[in-house]
Amino acid sequence: MSSTRDIDALIDMMARLPGLGPRSARRAVLHLIRKRALLLSPLAKLMQTVADTARECATCGNIGTTEICDICTNAKRANGQICVVEDVADLWAMERGQAFKGRYHVLGGTLSALDQVGPEVLRIPALLARVDSEAITEVILALNATVEGQTTAHYIADQLDGRVTLTSLAQGVPIGGELDYLDDGTISAALSARKRL
Amino acid sequence: MSSTRDIDALIDMMARLPGLGPRSARRAVLHLIRKRALLLSPLAKLMQTVADTARECATCGNIGTTEICDICTNAKRANGQICVVEDVADLWAMERGQAFKGRYHVLGGTLSALDQVGPEVLRIPALLARVDSEAITEVILALNATVEGQTTAHYIADQLDGRVTLTSLAQGVPIGGELDYLDDGTISAALSARKRL
Repeated sequence: MSSTRDIDALIDMMARLPGLGPRSARRAVLHLIRKRALLLSPLAKLMQTVADTARECATCGNIGTTEICDICTNAKRANGQICVVEDVADLWAMERGQAFKGRYHVLGGTLSALDQVGPEVLRIPALLARVDSEAITEVILALNATVEGQTTAHYIADQLDGRVTLTSLAQGVPIGGELDYLDDGTISAALSARKRL
Repeated sequence: MSSTRDIDALIDMMARLPGLGPRSARRAVLHLIRKRALLLSPLAKLMQTVADTARECATCGNIGTTEICDICTNAKRANGQICVVEDVADLWAMERGQAFKGRYHVLGGTLSALDQVGPEVLRIPALLARVDSEAITEVILALNATVEGQTTAHYIADQLDGRVTLTSLAQGVPIGGELDYLDDGTISAALSARKRL
């Protein structure tokens, strides 16, 4: 391998990141070392800053650098809508879409009896408390279209039944999607939710 | 996007690493932030250490943390063989093979008239000087089997002609390789270099 312990340790550590393996970690580390003044040192400093400041928003579970995140402190987004997502990555994906103007609630996973993940692990009590304390009119369940995601959505819907309007994301053909490449479930969901032109 | 500038900046920076894109950078950064005490902070410190200490070996061009790398200072490896490689990644690949017991010389690229890469840019003069000053008997040209790699190998062979034994890596079927998946060039090279059983 390389001639020194620190470089090997850095490669090992990078190789454990999701999406990287030993080969791509070696490439990335070599690239960083070649541009160490321009890239490696600034990256190290930025990582340390983020490590020191990153925290979960106490209200919604989003990741930011303040006790309460920018979305929760933004008064313009108090429109009575809460979008429930499984994960911070899903929240970021929704934000990239720029279509949702309300606030979020990050569950941090899905219910799973096998893995002993109950409602209290998932910030579901915090969601119910928010619905009571904030002036919430609609809860959008934007959970993944997996068995676990839908089970969790059903559980939350049961808990909130009658207290707010409950909605979920529409299912259908993705924009730019080709029918030939779609799975049968998506096609039948899109067909049964067909709209009049 | 995420609620803060530093996190966005970290994602942007990670996304520019080879092998990562915006999506995988987001995943990696989220993973790091979730395990910030265990992963992000140690990774930041390690990167800073490597940024401060990593340097190219003054003799062979390998990357390490000392003026002269471990391979060049190891007296056991002064066996009269120098293996010439294009890149530090190639040197590391050779070392993983654990078959070569001599020393290396990293060119740092290949000759290219178009990109104005001449012999002096590529540490070729340093290689010729080493052949004169060290007791070198064999130079193994382990350059990539590309047009540029082979052009560079020919140039070096011309310069060293008659002064040392010149060899190159054997070409043929890779271990575990299936003929059906090999390109025509490899098959014809393997056929013309066939060995008697």
